[in-house]
Amino acid sequence: MAHSPKAIVLLSGGLDSATVLAIASATFECHAISFDYHQRHVAELNAAKQLARCYQARHQVIKLDDGVMAGSALTDSRIAVPQSGLEQGIPVTYVPARNTVFLAHALAVAEVQASNDILIGVNAVDYSGYPDCRPEYINAFERMANLATKAGVEGQRLNIHAPLLHMSKADIIANGLELGVDYSLTVSCYQADLQGRACGVCDSCRLRRAGFEAAGVGDPTRYQTR
Amino acid sequence: MAHSPKAIVLLSGGLDSATVLAIASATFECHAISFDYHQRHVAELNAAKQLARCYQARHQVIKLDDGVMAGSALTDSRIAVPQSGLEQGIPVTYVPARNTVFLAHALAVAEVQASNDILIGVNAVDYSGYPDCRPEYINAFERMANLATKAGVEGQRLNIHAPLLHMSKADIIANGLELGVDYSLTVSCYQADLQGRACGVCDSCRLRRAGFEAAGVGDPTRYQTR
Repeated sequence: MAHSPKAIVLLSGGLDSATVLAIASATFECHAISFDYHQRHVAELNAAKQLARCYQARHQVIKLDDGVMAGSALTDSRIAVPQSGLEQGIPVTYVPARNTVFLAHALAVAEVQASNDILIGVNAVDYSGYPDCRPEYINAFERMANLATKAGVEGQRLNIHAPLLHMSKADIIANGLELGVDYSLTVSCYQADLQGRACGVCDSCRLRRAGFEAAGVGDPTRYQTR
Repeated sequence: MAHSPKAIVLLSGGLDSATVLAIASATFECHAISFDYHQRHVAELNAAKQLARCYQARHQVIKLDDGVMAGSALTDSRIAVPQSGLEQGIPVTYVPARNTVFLAHALAVAEVQASNDILIGVNAVDYSGYPDCRPEYINAFERMANLATKAGVEGQRLNIHAPLLHMSKADIIANGLELGVDYSLTVSCYQADLQGRACGVCDSCRLRRAGFEAAGVGDPTRYQTR
């Protein structure tokens, strides 16, 4: 059997990145990375760990310095997570430069691991309006990455894959179910409790719940009882 | 007196970044950031601290996770720092994706601090041949950064300034001396001792020493006695 090429997969532990890991596993030997950035939803990291185990992926948790991922409702308990539905504009859950910091680390790991492929679960259809989830951003990062590294200079093309970019949440779920993803393991909620139970009312919960409805399948999410 | 705009300055503690801080201080209120990435030359960080104090800049040391900045002679004691002079190609002191990880953090800090300006001391003349010091790389990072952030979407242009990019080491030194930079405080050596004394034979020491010679000024570097 031929040896699979290695890929670096950004794995948050949510629905989207779990689907990306399932997609990537068909082609690549996966090295999953997650970030501990003092996010409210630490249950995410436990979910990521379980998912990596399901796919026999190596799993690396990278700790970011306190106070870098700041100025967001997801990292600052003084800013409330909105619960009344998506509004116009970029929401307070936006974390400044988050995907750039994540992808920069992935690029460093990729080069050290001699991998030419990074996968990220960004989506520009059913999403919260974050600028660093748009196709033009992903393309610009890829272009920069190919100028940044020794591997790039030596002619190894680095690819940033965003397989969910143009899919609806329902399509993502349908795709994942076909690949056997166990969505009960995933945590999408911005303020999940320590057991990974979802609030049901934040933007991420709303997008996720609507996705299961639109896909016409049962929602396996464990919700907090209120 | 008008309030100066705020800039984020990448400050390693070496000759180049000290000069950049001096240049930036003329125009901006500076927020200097340094990285603790388990580099061999920890004396750099002490130098950065002293330099920030000289320029009344706020100084933030950002700790990177163990093992991310890997695969380099600067972070792995099993790889020897070359001592016999610059050779063709990218040397073993290259740290994978280092400037991308540094600039990504600077971008996050800039957005949180509402700053539109990041300064970095890269140089593409008297340098070690690192790919992430080239003008095309800096331009590509700037382009990506303007697509990445909420500030960018809202029309705040983010500028990556690399004022030393096309200067020789001698020009950098002449410029810095005019601005009053005390180069005896700076540490450029890849394997400085804990007191910040330089080895005199690594690539960085060679470039620095040649710079003082070409500038026709005394070299204030403290060297290790051998």
